[in-house]
Amino acid sequence: MTTDRDQACFEAGIKFGALYHQFAGTPVSPESAPSLETAIEESIENQPFCESVSVDILTDELDVEHGYTELTGEYMEVEIVVDHEGVEVVAEMAMEDGYPLMKLDEIRNERSE
Amino acid sequence: MTTDRDQACFEAGIKFGALYHQFAGTPVSPESAPSLETAIEESIENQPFCESVSVDILTDELDVEHGYTELTGEYMEVEIVVDHEGVEVVAEMAMEDGYPLMKLDEIRNERSE
Amino acid sequence: MTTDRDQACFEAGIKFGALYHQFAGTPVSPESAPSLETAIEESIENQPFCESVSVDILTDELDVEHGYTELTGEYMEVEIVVDHEGVEVVAEMAMEDGYPLMKLDEIRNERSE
Amino acid sequence: MTTDRDQACFEAGIKFGALYHQFAGTPVSPESAPSLETAIEESIENQPFCESVSVDILTDELDVEHGYTELTGEYMEVEIVVDHEGVEVVAEMAMEDGYPLMKLDEIRNERSE
Repeated sequence: MTTDRDQACFEAGIKFGALYHQFAGTPVSPESAPSLETAIEESIENQPFCESVSVDILTDELDVEHGYTELTGEYMEVEIVVDHEGVEVVAEMAMEDGYPLMKLDEIRNERSE
Repeated sequence: MTTDRDQACFEAGIKFGALYHQFAGTPVSPESAPSLETAIEESIENQPFCESVSVDILTDELDVEHGYTELTGEYMEVEIVVDHEGVEVVAEMAMEDGYPLMKLDEIRNERSE
Repeated sequence: MTTDRDQACFEAGIKFGALYHQFAGTPVSPESAPSLETAIEESIENQPFCESVSVDILTDELDVEHGYTELTGEYMEVEIVVDHEGVEVVAEMAMEDGYPLMKLDEIRNERSE
Repeated sequence: MTTDRDQACFEAGIKFGALYHQFAGTPVSPESAPSLETAIEESIENQPFCESVSVDILTDELDVEHGYTELTGEYMEVEIVVDHEGVEVVAEMAMEDGYPLMKLDEIRNERSE
């Protein structure tokens, strides 16, 4: 048996894995970062149960020795909100100990509150 | 508050999103399918909490009019097992109604049984 | 020995392969297509020797039965202009016979003309 | 007008761009590197005009502090051979000055020699 809460957490994970592995490796510079942020947000928001996606590319951190670099977890902070049948999950990704950690931030059962 | 069960479901989702969006678009033919299956399995098994990944590329379904095609959800079945602090999640992906559906199959709390 | 013309053709190919395999699989809908077009253009334009990239996502063609689909060659037309040491290459991608064909369109040696 | 030599250089570039942007970001460890090398080689060899692909993942260089890392140009050396109507192009990718440089190595016109 799986619950709506299980499903909501599962769906939040799918969005993070998709976002990261679809866009990791994209050439990015401080100038092109804003359009990439918007495209990542709007593309992942297409996915089922996805309420909102917020991507912040850390332009100050980008290695621009060659004019641009490839997007990796080191250069972005992400928050995703998923809603599955009234259970809302907020999850985020940020660097922790040199690793782009994806974690559950908050789970709200909107029907029971 | 999040539980180990929540985390396990979240982690299972991450693996599915990662697998799909890392490898979708890879050129594949019946001849190259076996090496791709193995590489997908072994690469995703590197990720944290991932116990096992099983990928079956449906070689009979591949469109080979041009000798090869691009891998999409239409052409693969996947099972992933994640273990987070004793909570084991089995999830799978298969076509359903023309859409590659990822779903939770089973959740087992190994500590309480 | 390789010439500037060889290099320019090689660089044009790199941009096409990069563009296609970076963004194939991205979730896209008629609503999110414009931001994705811009992001693809600006990200690939970061690459060395790349003068301009023009991407047209064929929103009328998108399969939206599930609200969105995954970007593939079937849904986009692309023109890329590369300049390597005065040799300008124009290349394009469009569907031909059910296959997203990338081809050289024009090569101009700007120094000798 | 474009020549077979132009086309061969263009096709070699496509293979490099495709290889890099399809597989950059893949989770890789010293244990899973061999299967990934084989899968990359066999998948890209499916593409038109591609004679052979040789991928060497530099397992000694992999950052394994977290057990695995993500594949980038820093960790691989690649040689690709393309043949377009008798013109053979050998191209390679290796790190140069902190940047994964793709370059034409040799062009042979097999018909005229």
